Amino acid sequence: MQLGDLLAPVRAELERVGSELVAELRGEEADLLPLVELAASFRGKQLRPALVLLAGRAVGALREEHVAVGKIIELLHTATLVHDDVLDGASLRRQQATVNAAYGTEIPVLLGDYIYARAFHMSVLLSDPTCSRVLAETTRRICQGEITQILHRFDFDWDEARYFRVIVDKTATLYAAACRLGAHYAGASRAQVEAADRFGLELGTAFQVVDDCLDLDGDEHVVGKSLGTDLSRGKLTLPLLWLLGQREHGERLRELMRSPGDEHAKLAVLKREFPLEAAIGVAMEGARRRLANARAALAGLPASPARDAMDGLVDYVLARSS
Amino acid sequence: MQLGDLLAPVRAELERVGSELVAELRGEEADLLPLVELAASFRGKQLRPALVLLAGRAVGALREEHVAVGKIIELLHTATLVHDDVLDGASLRRQQATVNAAYGTEIPVLLGDYIYARAFHMSVLLSDPTCSRVLAETTRRICQGEITQILHRFDFDWDEARYFRVIVDKTATLYAAACRLGAHYAGASRAQVEAADRFGLELGTAFQVVDDCLDLDGDEHVVGKSLGTDLSRGKLTLPLLWLLGQREHGERLRELMRSPGDEHAKLAVLKREFPLEAAIGVAMEGARRRLANARAALAGLPASPARDAMDGLVDYVLARSS
Repeated sequence: MQLGDLLAPVRAELERVGSELVAELRGEEADLLPLVELAASFRGKQLRPALVLLAGRAVGALREEHVAVGKIIELLHTATLVHDDVLDGASLRRQQATVNAAYGTEIPVLLGDYIYARAFHMSVLLSDPTCSRVLAETTRRICQGEITQILHRFDFDWDEARYFRVIVDKTATLYAAACRLGAHYAGASRAQVEAADRFGLELGTAFQVVDDCLDLDGDEHVVGKSLGTDLSRGKLTLPLLWLLGQREHGERLRELMRSPGDEHAKLAVLKREFPLEAAIGVAMEGARRRLANARAALAGLPASPARDAMDGLVDYVLARSS
Repeated sequence: MQLGDLLAPVRAELERVGSELVAELRGEEADLLPLVELAASFRGKQLRPALVLLAGRAVGALREEHVAVGKIIELLHTATLVHDDVLDGASLRRQQATVNAAYGTEIPVLLGDYIYARAFHMSVLLSDPTCSRVLAETTRRICQGEITQILHRFDFDWDEARYFRVIVDKTATLYAAACRLGAHYAGASRAQVEAADRFGLELGTAFQVVDDCLDLDGDEHVVGKSLGTDLSRGKLTLPLLWLLGQREHGERLRELMRSPGDEHAKLAVLKREFPLEAAIGVAMEGARRRLANARAALAGLPASPARDAMDGLVDYVLARSS
């Protein structure tokens, strides 16, 4: 099923999230307007606000807060994208020049801070402080995960447990927060809030595993960004960890990762001389286990078209190629 | 009077701000500990938390919230320092290697985000949401001011009004927020909160004017950072704006600013061939006017040793050489 069809139960509200976000950002100072519009154009599938809305609809009725939380989560995600592009020195995102490509390093550092501040400001205007508390803690964990990952590049003592801890922090906590807040603002029971949180955490973890696989075996034109970067930057993702653990491949892979040369050249060697397909297979098995956990968590929510859509997202994450 | 003596009315609480901040940051993940300790070591005179405490004491009794708000404001300020050093490519702060000098660009971008998130998290734990609301808005304005300044480097159409608008945003709003929150959490009347806010805004504006003068005529060893950077980076500060407006100097100064060459060489030319002393004099006159406004705002607070200390800070800002 296409993502657009899956999101049908919350389409109207999701469109409000997108259009209101753009309209509100238009109220900026003239100097900032082109910057925030550029950042807003990087937004993609709106998966995170969709989760806020689906989790809300799955346990009750959607309220104004759901649209607000959807906007806040999407803004926060946008801020991380702007900073990520600085960190990666990326020049293209969604076929457009990144903020750093267009303006240098300084502007996107400040623009990311600015968008974070906008998100927090919108969240503290809500009467219930749950959104602010969850999002401040989530942002802290996203940064913590990213910092840990950078500090342990080329750290060949890295293991699967630490890999999962980092991707939970840097990616899955925001999915969990989206689902948790969606359920919370619909008046869910404590058990339902925990079930929604668990669903988001497992789905987000699987999402990142698939992302890490795509970096090695995806189609650059479909994924829409430079691939092979984990390999040349020493980021020890799940397929690479498996290969490193194979007696006949580990030492050669360490050498390949440490060697000079660009990511495309290294990727070509990896595909030619290593059992990449098997490594991807093992990693995707890890993703599938997480997705099975996500599906199991849905049993904690009442049956509804929204819950069916969440179930459909499990298949979407597994099958996605971009 | 020395700053330490001026802050005597709130010394005990100010020491709590400093020591509790360091103790709480010690609770970090092992990977992050050296990073947050390095960032914490950049903190200086604790002027902003001191203003929270003095404004609170000036209108009533200090409560636990004042220490919390002091820590939050200091953390927020620390986050801006970490990001500023990335923007400026600075290698030294307070005689130590900056985070970017020690770890490259990526870590301090994320560390700044992490510290912002910690500050917001601490603030959303307070039962009264005023702190969160004021700080989210203040952070937004700090970023807006910094972005506007960067976008208008070497923009020789820049004028005094826009200069003041930018320094109010990027510097004075945090001073105003410190004073406003200090008064608010001591149960001040609306008029007292506004008087405290006005005091902080005028004091912070003057502080930045003095900072911009020190960049041109300070002693590098006393100030503790590289000077002359505004000149070579095209930042149109108040003394430079005055010189640019002088018929016999404007064109030559534009040429000097645009010319290649490092800041020390340009600073030497500025000192030798331009009436720098007169320019500094005019700018300091602007600072003095702001400080007179700050002093006038104090009339809105009841007489007390804390208010006297705030009055003393006016002279401190004018006389400071670092």
